[in-house]
Amino acid sequence: MSNLKEISGGVCAPQGFRAGGICCGIKVSSKKRDLALIYSEKPCTAKAMFTTNKVKAACVQVTQEHIAGEVLRAVIVNSGNANACTGEAGIEAARKMASLAADLFAINPKQVAVASTGVIGVPLPIGAIESSIEALGNSLRGDEAGHAAAQEAIMTTDTRKKDGALEMEIDGKPVRIGGMLKGAGMIHPNMATMLCFITSDAAITPEALDSCLRSAVRRSLNRVTVDGDTSTNDVIIVMANGQAGNETITIGSPGYDIFAGALESFCVKLSRDLARDGEGATKLLSVTVSGAKDEDSAETLAKSVAGSSLVKAAFFGADANWGRILCAMGYSGADFNPAEVDVVFASGGEEVMVCQGGASLPFSEPDAKRIISREEVDIRIKAGTGQGSATAWGCDLTYDYVKINGDYRS
Amino acid sequence: MSNLKEISGGVCAPQGFRAGGICCGIKVSSKKRDLALIYSEKPCTAKAMFTTNKVKAACVQVTQEHIAGEVLRAVIVNSGNANACTGEAGIEAARKMASLAADLFAINPKQVAVASTGVIGVPLPIGAIESSIEALGNSLRGDEAGHAAAQEAIMTTDTRKKDGALEMEIDGKPVRIGGMLKGAGMIHPNMATMLCFITSDAAITPEALDSCLRSAVRRSLNRVTVDGDTSTNDVIIVMANGQAGNETITIGSPGYDIFAGALESFCVKLSRDLARDGEGATKLLSVTVSGAKDEDSAETLAKSVAGSSLVKAAFFGADANWGRILCAMGYSGADFNPAEVDVVFASGGEEVMVCQGGASLPFSEPDAKRIISREEVDIRIKAGTGQGSATAWGCDLTYDYVKINGDYRS
Repeated sequence: MSNLKEISGGVCAPQGFRAGGICCGIKVSSKKRDLALIYSEKPCTAKAMFTTNKVKAACVQVTQEHIAGEVLRAVIVNSGNANACTGEAGIEAARKMASLAADLFAINPKQVAVASTGVIGVPLPIGAIESSIEALGNSLRGDEAGHAAAQEAIMTTDTRKKDGALEMEIDGKPVRIGGMLKGAGMIHPNMATMLCFITSDAAITPEALDSCLRSAVRRSLNRVTVDGDTSTNDVIIVMANGQAGNETITIGSPGYDIFAGALESFCVKLSRDLARDGEGATKLLSVTVSGAKDEDSAETLAKSVAGSSLVKAAFFGADANWGRILCAMGYSGADFNPAEVDVVFASGGEEVMVCQGGASLPFSEPDAKRIISREEVDIRIKAGTGQGSATAWGCDLTYDYVKINGDYRS
Repeated sequence: MSNLKEISGGVCAPQGFRAGGICCGIKVSSKKRDLALIYSEKPCTAKAMFTTNKVKAACVQVTQEHIAGEVLRAVIVNSGNANACTGEAGIEAARKMASLAADLFAINPKQVAVASTGVIGVPLPIGAIESSIEALGNSLRGDEAGHAAAQEAIMTTDTRKKDGALEMEIDGKPVRIGGMLKGAGMIHPNMATMLCFITSDAAITPEALDSCLRSAVRRSLNRVTVDGDTSTNDVIIVMANGQAGNETITIGSPGYDIFAGALESFCVKLSRDLARDGEGATKLLSVTVSGAKDEDSAETLAKSVAGSSLVKAAFFGADANWGRILCAMGYSGADFNPAEVDVVFASGGEEVMVCQGGASLPFSEPDAKRIISREEVDIRIKAGTGQGSATAWGCDLTYDYVKINGDYRS
């Protein structure tokens, strides 16, 4: 993807997008920003993926309705309250959020998506949002400051911003993708994902956008695990307003592969950021399985290893306890021959093989400890002689995970 | 089950069983007991269930062969080394363990089961076992001391003994069941279970014993979760030597229901002990789901709640964050209507409803905190209006879990 370059501006990097964020008072104790808005000057082709949890937050249900029209102009997001398990009043509150945002621009409320994140089961204080809606509108800026304020307003236990923007060339025209994402717990594959908002000025059909989104998410956000808990609120929304002036991308058109590749590589970057900032995490674990029967098997194996509490705790302790990796592969449900498995730990240009042919081999414990003590560790697994490979991302399990989640509400 | 009474003696409580345990030097650093033997004077009808992990320890593979004959005389068990991921040498070592034990009594090695628990991927020091085998034989005693030594020798991170014995009456004869079990991490449903050895002096056919075992395990040990990791070594073995002199129990015979009920209630007791002593646990969580479509749905829902890292961490913090319970039900895969869910926390004769109809209701936070701060907490969930119910057992997720598993090998 040689014509890809990183640019600044996040969700405001593509032409025609503005964003902002304010404190409306939902996060009572912290006085941090808790309400964000992303707005496009022109109507966007929009697609989304949602949590697979049977318990869906009110905002998810309302956004599922709105996105059915395939056109969005804005997204309004609050943090500090998930608006989940809040009954009919929650649905009404989510609709109200959409119409408050729509009124700012005199647009159709059905062209506004709604997202929430925070504690489950507490009524959303919609009054706080209503009384701050003008301020939210006034906060919109089409530059990095606007993006940064919005990013800050969607964070909960996140310790760092997870965002970025890319530029590519299609039909000789610069086309941009920007985005922001929040984690950091209640994150597990087999769902759309956490909250992730992606903007683009590409001209693209709904079908092509949907295809690019599903393919990118499959190989990125759906391969991240922090704690095995699939949230009630996860959503990824992508909006493309066409202002780049490229020929409209369709499935199979020359621009399709460029855009699809850019979106996937952007989502992989966000996935790594997400795993690295998992609740309490001290390190990013990238688990790559090769030699599996097919990509699905490789994915199943990689996700099982990345999701194992025992593997995660061992990496926190920098303990080269590779047996737990084979154990996690063994209960994954994927087919493989344990006697063909090799495992290598790698980081910072060094690597050490710790298991060969499914059994131990002599290795230097100090070398292994040094390698897996670093902040980014690759776990490379050869599962056999097949063609399937996949990477999953996770993090270590730490005291801080327990601390953060032992008393989240107070 | 009015004719059931608890008795002392553990695996040695049934007639004709002896047990012992010694230190043979596998647990190099601790000098704790690490080698156990259970022996029956007469041949036993024997059945077992094993881990479903694709990576099976050598001892599991060898015991699967031996149990195929449905007759056992002895079980030899070591702790400190799992003899898993140890290749052909591991298989040979497991066979050697069986024949060393067989030689003590001049019995067929195929009538000896072998089990191991401890670190994965390290060659089993079979020489240490060989040079201590006479001492192991000499340690056998048919009383509580023999049982206690054996129990101690199978423990790893367990902080307490998990054992017991029951007596029932069948055909006017006293019939006994005894057992011991070790946990405490790498424990998850959908497998046979951890190491669990059950003795009985009942006369029973192999078919009836198998049926009783599967039914009991389904409603007990397979509903325990500590950390979601299904081990490579899990096994439950039940041996019945017929010395009680009852009429041989067959499927459908008058004694069947008595014995099956006693075995299930005994396995439930061991399951509770196991969950309570989960690695790092400070409390036992019993999750009972009623009103589900059927027992399978109830089991799926209860296990998902008991296994959620976020739920477990919340209970460690005594945080009545019931939204995480609904979330865990939602991603369980079971069918239910979130709007019909009620959740009650109960302990020590007090209870508090925290969720009604899938949404919040006013409750006293101090009351809830007091109730869920206790060492045994019941989470009672009404999932709808169906007839299915099931209980799963788990524990909280604590700093000590991370500590224990961050540096297990050293």
